[in-house]
Formats: sequence, structure tokens, C-alpha cells
Amino acid sequence: MKFARFETNGWESYAVVEGDQLRVIQGDLFGQHHFTDARYPISGVKILPPTRPKSFWAVGLNYADHVAHQVENLDAERITRDAQTFRPWQKGVSSIIGQDDTIVLPKESDYVHYEGELVIVIGKPARRITPEEAPNFILGYTCGNDVSGEGSWSNDPSNWRKKTSDTFGPVGPWIETDIDPQSVDIITRVNGKENDRGSTSGMTFNCYETVSRISQFVTLHPGDLILTGAPGAVDGLKPGDVVEIEIAEIGTLRNPVAAE
Amino acid sequence: MKFARFETNGWESYAVVEGDQLRVIQGDLFGQHHFTDARYPISGVKILPPTRPKSFWAVGLNYADHVAHQVENLDAERITRDAQTFRPWQKGVSSIIGQDDTIVLPKESDYVHYEGELVIVIGKPARRITPEEAPNFILGYTCGNDVSGEGSWSNDPSNWRKKTSDTFGPVGPWIETDIDPQSVDIITRVNGKENDRGSTSGMTFNCYETVSRISQFVTLHPGDLILTGAPGAVDGLKPGDVVEIEIAEIGTLRNPVAAE
Repeated sequence: MKFARFETNGWESYAVVEGDQLRVIQGDLFGQHHFTDARYPISGVKILPPTRPKSFWAVGLNYADHVAHQVENLDAERITRDAQTFRPWQKGVSSIIGQDDTIVLPKESDYVHYEGELVIVIGKPARRITPEEAPNFILGYTCGNDVSGEGSWSNDPSNWRKKTSDTFGPVGPWIETDIDPQSVDIITRVNGKENDRGSTSGMTFNCYETVSRISQFVTLHPGDLILTGAPGAVDGLKPGDVVEIEIAEIGTLRNPVAAE
Repeated sequence: MKFARFETNGWESYAVVEGDQLRVIQGDLFGQHHFTDARYPISGVKILPPTRPKSFWAVGLNYADHVAHQVENLDAERITRDAQTFRPWQKGVSSIIGQDDTIVLPKESDYVHYEGELVIVIGKPARRITPEEAPNFILGYTCGNDVSGEGSWSNDPSNWRKKTSDTFGPVGPWIETDIDPQSVDIITRVNGKENDRGSTSGMTFNCYETVSRISQFVTLHPGDLILTGAPGAVDGLKPGDVVEIEIAEIGTLRNPVAAE
């Protein structure tokens, strides 16, 4: 099932995606709720980021192919060392944008790249859970783009502006509850051209492992999002581009790019 | 003026602190609101963390005395290099606890220390503002404890469990709107004994500079909190301790410590 969050006439709600229609859900998606008979055409509403998370986590360097790509472009010794450790970090909720929202390139950055990723959506409060228990705490999955400023920023001792600048966290278009998270392909297109394709089967730390490991120290809350890493090569974005992250079983996250 | 957030009988509200009483505020503290005539004794309610921030930022290594202390205990080369750069990071809202809430020492950590700090409370959305404009975007200040797990965790390539573990973010007890943030003393006591005292005049990046610099890349939202760094020495906490962070012009943040 696909759950979307949308806005129409200044009013926000969750809905179930039924073909090209949204069927309105009344109540709390993460608690008591029921399906109504009210429907809106998707084309007539604004699709919002699928949740309002308390925390927006990310796990970097989580695919061998991506690590190999980054080693060619960045500090090889650091990348290789970091890739061996589970090291989630907070992308920051203030970076979040949704479907069709614009990625704005900061005027200080000389190179901003896309990273198409599978995103975990937490469904229930999770603390000290095992990988085996993790599926019970996950509501579903969406698409994400871990937009990253590199170039002259690559040697910053912290990733705060590289990774958490405003608009650097596109997620959406909606949540799919019924996929096997380790057997979907992530396709990244820029201006309609396929730039990268990789299977989530290549993750170093899989989704259940990731949720379990974060939950050993931090409570994950309903609606929290976790970016699970880019599978392969990444490349720069320029004003006027349109970047799409497609996971066929979920949908396609699409964002235009503009200069500040 | 002091603004506190509190709970009584399952009901939450903001209030103005008047001596040992809380005078209830109706409306949105960050927007339209007015003072009512309803009052509660502070001793009869639960004081909550002073805001529900979207983002909880921190600036580390922001005092020369603290850097000198950390150089003795940790990787001197890294600490010295990092202290020269403005490098905020996200503490994570899921770590936040309030007055009298318990700091829980994770069973995996062999050394957890306190860091008493001044905390900036954002009052209005701030983006690309100058240090001169910053006071207009700050509502006030509170006390914070940047609880940190070190020891065997010190060499983690990310600070996610060192700094963002559950209960590692005590803040409170309330917001003071009328202080000069660069001329207050921060006193840290463990079990009533003063362990450290330092003036905020020693900050490398002062509060207005900090807000301005973060806002160049990230929108700060009303209620967002920024820890501004520990002024001096830090030391370990053990089960049964009570740690207090006092800034006389604001109040005293007090938290007991327990094993998991």
C-alpha cells in the first residue's frame, strides 16, 4: 500500500494512493485512522514530504560500488577507513523538501552532487530492537536524494554544510509498505538520462541491521526517516537540471535544480 | 523575563516565571500570545524542556580553555585542527531531556562526561542574517549539558553515539530573555561540589556569530536550540551523581545520573 501526505486548499492530510487518485485517511497514520470515501486527483494537489520526522538520519558509504567511486574522487584513506564502521549521522530535518520542490545550489559551493537512495520510514518507537524485530517497527520505504556539496567543502571537518544545507534533503513521493527492501533497484536520472542504477542487495549494513544498530543508542520515533546510502556513482548538478530518483516499486522522486 | 514550559494534569503550557510561581501564557510563545491570571506553584508541576525544537545544534571546542583541556585527554592534533574551524553539528532532538530528568549511562560506554553550556533559543526564522541582526532572531538563553560518551568511543569516526544517545541532551530549566550572552558565568557542580566555572566572554565564536554562520546554509526555526560549547574542564559521571549547570542570570539545570 502507498501512503502519501498532501496539501490542498491550505489543508493537509494523509491518503492512500489508488491509481491517479488519493483516497483521504482520517486520523493518525501512525495510530488510529480509517479510510474515507473522499478522493482527490494526484495532479490537482501538492504532494508533501511523506512525514514530518523528529529525526532524519543517514548512513553513508553503505555500498562497495559507491565506496570504490568515492575513493577515486576524495580522500581515499579516510573513505576506506570510514566505510568499515557503522557511522550514521543526522542529515537534519530542516533540509527536507518534497516532490517537485527545488534543490537550491548555495552560492558558496562549487560542486553539488545527487545521491539516489532508499529511505526507511519508521512506524513505531524503536529502542534496543534486534534486526529480526526491525520489520515490525518499519512502516515502509520511500525514495531520497542525499544532496551533497563537495568540491571546496570536501575537507571540512564536519559535514554540516556539505550535507544539511537547506533543500539538500528531497524525500518522496510517498511511502510504500510492501517491498523487500534488499531487492529493489535505485535508478538516478538527470534530465531524463539514466546516470546510475544499483540494487539495494549491495548494501553493507542492510535496512533491518541499520534500524537495529541506531536503536541501540537512540530511540527512533514514528515518521523518522533513514537514508541508506547511494549504491554507485554520483555526479554534479547544475541550474536547470531535473534530477529523478526512481525505485519502480515505490515511485519517482523528481526535483528541479536552481541557482540561489 | 523567564519563559518556562510545564505540564500539570496531562496538560502542557508556557508560563512566565514569577518568583516561585508560573503565570500561564495562552497562545503561541513564538507568535500571538497573552498572559493570563492563572498561576501554579513551580514545586507542584513538571518543568519540561523549554522548547520542542525542529533542530538541536551544537558548536564544539568553542573556548580556548576547553580546547587546552581536551588536548591533554584526546587526540591533540585533531582537536587543535578542529578548533580552528567553525563546525556546528546536530546533537539530535531525540536526546533532549528536561529539568530533573535522569541521564542514563549506556551499558556500552566506559566514560560519560558532562559539559555545562549556554544554549541559544531561536525566536524567529533566520536565514542569511548577519551577526548584527542576530539578536532580533534570538528569543533568549537557557542552560544545557552536552553529555558525551568518550573513553572507548573517542575514536569513532562519527559522534552519533558519543553525543546523541538518548538522555544526552539535558536543557532548561527555562528561557531567560534579558541577558548579555557574552558576560555570564557557567558553573558546573557534581553532587554539590563546583567542578568548573568559566565566563562566556571566552567563546571563540560568540552567540551572534554562531547564529549568523549557521544561518548562511540552514534556516533556523523558532524554538531551535544551539549549544555553544563548554568553557573549561569536564569530568566523568557515575550512577548516583547529580549534575547541575548553573548560570545565575538564568537558573540551574539539575539532572540525576543512573546506570541503564
